[in-house]
Amino acid sequence: MTCEIVSVGTELLLGQIVDTNAAFLSRELAAIGVQVFWRTTVGDNRDRITAALRTALARADVVITIGGLGPTEDDLTREAIADALGEPLEYDPVLGAHLQQLFAARGREATPSQLRQAYRPPSAETIPNPYGTAPGLKVEREGKWLFALPGPPNEFEPMVHEQIIPLLKGRTAGMVIRSRVLRLCGIGEADAEAQLQDLVRQSNPTLAPLAHLGEVHLRITAKASSPDEAEQLIAQMERAVRERLGDSIYGTDETTLEQVVVNLLREHGQSLANAESCTGGLLSHRITEVPGSSEVFIGGIVAYSNAVKEQELGVPRTILEQYGAVSEQTARAMAEGVRARLGSYWGIGITGIAGPSGGTPEKPVGMVYISLSDPTGTMVQRHLFLGDRHTIKWRASQAALTLLRQGILKGGCDSLSRS
Amino acid sequence: MTCEIVSVGTELLLGQIVDTNAAFLSRELAAIGVQVFWRTTVGDNRDRITAALRTALARADVVITIGGLGPTEDDLTREAIADALGEPLEYDPVLGAHLQQLFAARGREATPSQLRQAYRPPSAETIPNPYGTAPGLKVEREGKWLFALPGPPNEFEPMVHEQIIPLLKGRTAGMVIRSRVLRLCGIGEADAEAQLQDLVRQSNPTLAPLAHLGEVHLRITAKASSPDEAEQLIAQMERAVRERLGDSIYGTDETTLEQVVVNLLREHGQSLANAESCTGGLLSHRITEVPGSSEVFIGGIVAYSNAVKEQELGVPRTILEQYGAVSEQTARAMAEGVRARLGSYWGIGITGIAGPSGGTPEKPVGMVYISLSDPTGTMVQRHLFLGDRHTIKWRASQAALTLLRQGILKGGCDSLSRS
Repeated sequence: MTCEIVSVGTELLLGQIVDTNAAFLSRELAAIGVQVFWRTTVGDNRDRITAALRTALARADVVITIGGLGPTEDDLTREAIADALGEPLEYDPVLGAHLQQLFAARGREATPSQLRQAYRPPSAETIPNPYGTAPGLKVEREGKWLFALPGPPNEFEPMVHEQIIPLLKGRTAGMVIRSRVLRLCGIGEADAEAQLQDLVRQSNPTLAPLAHLGEVHLRITAKASSPDEAEQLIAQMERAVRERLGDSIYGTDETTLEQVVVNLLREHGQSLANAESCTGGLLSHRITEVPGSSEVFIGGIVAYSNAVKEQELGVPRTILEQYGAVSEQTARAMAEGVRARLGSYWGIGITGIAGPSGGTPEKPVGMVYISLSDPTGTMVQRHLFLGDRHTIKWRASQAALTLLRQGILKGGCDSLSRS
Repeated sequence: MTCEIVSVGTELLLGQIVDTNAAFLSRELAAIGVQVFWRTTVGDNRDRITAALRTALARADVVITIGGLGPTEDDLTREAIADALGEPLEYDPVLGAHLQQLFAARGREATPSQLRQAYRPPSAETIPNPYGTAPGLKVEREGKWLFALPGPPNEFEPMVHEQIIPLLKGRTAGMVIRSRVLRLCGIGEADAEAQLQDLVRQSNPTLAPLAHLGEVHLRITAKASSPDEAEQLIAQMERAVRERLGDSIYGTDETTLEQVVVNLLREHGQSLANAESCTGGLLSHRITEVPGSSEVFIGGIVAYSNAVKEQELGVPRTILEQYGAVSEQTARAMAEGVRARLGSYWGIGITGIAGPSGGTPEKPVGMVYISLSDPTGTMVQRHLFLGDRHTIKWRASQAALTLLRQGILKGGCDSLSRS
């Protein structure tokens, strides 16, 4: 089965945004063995979108359009689909009622332009969009499928995952491509690759290291004549990698480090509280991205000023004066303070210099102290992170999650610091 | 003059890399007034690259291919250009000698596969590549131009800058395109467009609304014979937009809402502290992304559990019991509590249901109360946000920043709630 992607939007052709949606969709399609031979990008122009759709429908089994379904006048994908099908656009009263309900729930009325989203060609079905106002469309004709999806990534990505991929999976036959990503923390890309050199040279399955911010991904990709065979090839490679780097592998595929940490806390019946200075709330934000984190996450103190470190966390003024806010001693007092104060099993304290200013020769930008505390003890790590403000904050939150994961797995700070 | 971009590479169609080259080239072309109506992406397949080139040459004045010029067997752009022109590929002894010299200078010999890069169709000229081994190609035929450039960005970008743009500039007769983005908060895309309908219909400059998560961008794009003239057209349109929606425009181009809020706080000599429940630290994280935010941001309490709301923020237990953690009363007590506790000028309190579970018919997922408090008073807004957990958190942080911006601009909660 072949697919053509039609990306719609003048902002793409002006280079104002990079087409990450198309790359995301391509990866999802490759993973289920759907081949993409063409991708066409057109602007917000009805005739050119129509022409692109006709060409795509002539040469691919499945056509997926991205964008141009919103309420405004430059959203023209609906019109172009109708033109390409040779049908009029008709008002769908069910869709219209749904939109009006959405707005009514917010105490507002759906404007006429919002109601443009309730029109569809008669032969198109609606793909429900629980993430926004613009529904998707699905047309089946002469054994081919045309899907139209909205462009905002927070709507597009879950709709692909939940609605398009399952439909296409039912139709793909023959050669399949499967891949699995192993996600590593606490190890660099070069170190990981040095231990995997012979495996990286193999051709089926392939093993490709990819550096991400604060973590390394290893993508295993296998081609085979059946899903089972592909999964077996992947499983063999995964075993070989795990034998060498097992401790650093925190999860697979879409699993995030914060999900793993929240799950570990839940399994161990332990709770967490954070005291953050330079990360400014990022660590707590990441943990609370995980559904159900409220079961294990009690809360946090973002102690940006020294006064908050002293009053809310009980960091002694003498420590702040003698060693400074960015010091091993302050980090330790923050972790122990937030644990005591909020009554959690684990406490994390982070203090450092995120930059771009505020660095000194002794304490340069990127120096971050991370402390972990539990009933068995308290430990502190010193890091020197490279990068801009955002990168340093992210790497610090990543290092804190990595340390907490190790602490839980080793059974406590005391065992971890002796291992 | 119109241009079509043909991006070549199977890795693009597998989504393994994002096409930043095409976005870069698009911006460079827009800046000198060359219009891109189509972009076609094909894999490393000779027939499909040839077909893409023929189509592109039929509908555009200039065709630029990116990638597929290297030494390996899957680099097939040279072959496809020869096919599209109906010419053979011939060895160019000058190019061959140049390549052999390049390798000799590194104490190596040019392999036969390296020497593939010395072949070209007879009617193509060489574009020198001082940054790598693969030269570019240039063909002029029937008043049209075809350029082929190598794909590595460190070769591609300077070749575009130094060789392609100057050539095209000579032909565009001075037409330039300039654009500016106005960024709006606190208003939806459809509402914004409803007030701008006549302006959105204009053709030069154009005005295009674009929905982002929790904000709307309006892109003004002008074509003119000089940069000054283009800037004037943009300034006129910007004035017209500001007359109607001035209050909602928080910044231009790359400015973020958190930058604007931090700058406003600094200008007014005011400080801020946050009490976050459902946003889990995201608001504090966003504020501390801004360099220098430590001057105005004192800190925050991430009050995920009710115990933290009570003990650290002083939310009365009677309020939590009578109205619930997600209520107007709790949001108000959180904002006032964090202000009093941390000693800030402004206090923000956010409590809501981020989902996916935890919703009830009276308090569904997405319901969020946001409170703002200052010495003149306290106000609370109720929102019902659509989306997944992350989206709801983001929209809530965006609404809080929007409310704080309005509060500062109106001179306080008291004036804001009466306006």
